[in-house]
Amino acid sequence: MGNRITELFGIRYPIVQAGMIWCSGWRLAAAAAEAGCLGIIGAGSMYPDVLREHLKKVKAATDKPVGVNLPLLYPAIEEHVQSILEFGIKVVFSSAGNPKTWTETLKKEGITVVHVVPSAKFAVKAAAAGVDAVVCEGFEAGGHNGKDETTTLVLTPMVRDAVDIPVIAAGGIGSGRAMLATMALGADGVQVGSRFAASVESSAHEAFKQAIVDTPEGGTMLSMKSVVPVRLVRNAFQQRIAEAEARGASREELAEILGRARAKRGMFEGDLAEGELEIGQISGAIHSVQTVAEIVEEMVREYEEARKGLHAL
Amino acid sequence: MGNRITELFGIRYPIVQAGMIWCSGWRLAAAAAEAGCLGIIGAGSMYPDVLREHLKKVKAATDKPVGVNLPLLYPAIEEHVQSILEFGIKVVFSSAGNPKTWTETLKKEGITVVHVVPSAKFAVKAAAAGVDAVVCEGFEAGGHNGKDETTTLVLTPMVRDAVDIPVIAAGGIGSGRAMLATMALGADGVQVGSRFAASVESSAHEAFKQAIVDTPEGGTMLSMKSVVPVRLVRNAFQQRIAEAEARGASREELAEILGRARAKRGMFEGDLAEGELEIGQISGAIHSVQTVAEIVEEMVREYEEARKGLHAL
Repeated sequence: MGNRITELFGIRYPIVQAGMIWCSGWRLAAAAAEAGCLGIIGAGSMYPDVLREHLKKVKAATDKPVGVNLPLLYPAIEEHVQSILEFGIKVVFSSAGNPKTWTETLKKEGITVVHVVPSAKFAVKAAAAGVDAVVCEGFEAGGHNGKDETTTLVLTPMVRDAVDIPVIAAGGIGSGRAMLATMALGADGVQVGSRFAASVESSAHEAFKQAIVDTPEGGTMLSMKSVVPVRLVRNAFQQRIAEAEARGASREELAEILGRARAKRGMFEGDLAEGELEIGQISGAIHSVQTVAEIVEEMVREYEEARKGLHAL
Repeated sequence: MGNRITELFGIRYPIVQAGMIWCSGWRLAAAAAEAGCLGIIGAGSMYPDVLREHLKKVKAATDKPVGVNLPLLYPAIEEHVQSILEFGIKVVFSSAGNPKTWTETLKKEGITVVHVVPSAKFAVKAAAAGVDAVVCEGFEAGGHNGKDETTTLVLTPMVRDAVDIPVIAAGGIGSGRAMLATMALGADGVQVGSRFAASVESSAHEAFKQAIVDTPEGGTMLSMKSVVPVRLVRNAFQQRIAEAEARGASREELAEILGRARAKRGMFEGDLAEGELEIGQISGAIHSVQTVAEIVEEMVREYEEARKGLHAL
């Protein structure tokens, strides 16, 4: 059965594969699209020529809808937008910046624009900027996160009630049960990150995929709150940051500990101790590396089973 | 339709009114019981003679099931247990301590014992200690909270999969939609705190009830993490604690800022600037002070509407 999200993107299931740095290249996006979801290439970790290469390959791999996640603070954003237009990409998920800056330009080119928000307040601003839908991402999500720390359970109905455009829930969703739960809260669809980061088709390093599987309950923490909040696996690097924060380290000192290219080092090069491992709390419930097709099939089956298990009071 | 929670407690709806210091006296517990929920008296803020007074009054006010929330670290716990037995209370929710200590004693007296946990790991321990059910409470909940910061959306299915006994979800649940969502995640019932703290029958100060209504999105923070994590409204006191923590203050200094009786000062005496105001994130979605009967009726209606709105994929 169709809904506002399947219709907006022309897809089978209201599931979006999250654009994730170092994880979601053309292979993951194509597999997600072929499985009936919206596939997304995460452009945030790509140089312009790398994005072009991924766009070329994804177009050769699938004719189903694929979008691009575009962090609006990306330095070479004009080149990324040029590539998106050139390769006929019809969906852009924007994040980390003001949706006013690019929405009008993209929509004039016939592109569907979705903005990622951490609060109802920013959802209202995104809607006013003309976006077609919002992703509301809760505290449990991996990677960068909002300062209010509002969880998906609390955030989703607040955003639902604040805007009329379709709402995609994100953060903590790696199963059909969680998908059903967020749709009960009023979401029109879901965005799934961590579960796909650990998929066969993810471009993450195999050691990082195994680290996601191995992460226990409580194995991630929202870190670097005084700089820019990001949810990371608790490892040697994260521990050093946490200790520095606990003794009131300055932003400069934290930036020095962070250094450069920590995310690449962890997620793409597989340095599990010293890399930045961005992943969601739901990693504690991810128990194997599966293909995208297996993940989607399992989520759809679980959704149906859980739906049939809900009774009248 | 009955389920494991309605049958366990002999109640109409699988809704537990949370035991909350300074909010849940006999009046709130009796109103919740009369509305078809399990009413709970929060004994954590009561001297032994005060608890006895509340038990006497609640017995006179309702013959429906009412339980007592017993923080296991409470200094005069033996006297509380004695009162519970004397007044024929049949349900105890234990929290903040080891469930091994009292479960066997209470169960020998024919009491149903439920323990509050912040993780699947502790749920398994509580089940092994012989409790009849667990409340799993997520990061978004008001008051004291776990160190892992796992949210209700992530925690509930983990606990569901870890134990066979009934699971009651808590944290972020103030509507029928959230109730349906957590039951989609596998919960057998829900525990509702903040919404009832702001009810007409709550024993909280009227100024605190209004503060709950006035709390905006993002208006609470998990505070005092280095001592014992507690979710509070952002006010002058909470801000002072947050600033001290940010500069790496010692536990001793934080304890000195905290001082004594801050919770009573805030929630019972209505000092909104200098009191400790324990409330959940969902306060951002609470828009009026209602009677318990109105709240329960609204939640049940919303649950049904949301359930009917869930379609096959």
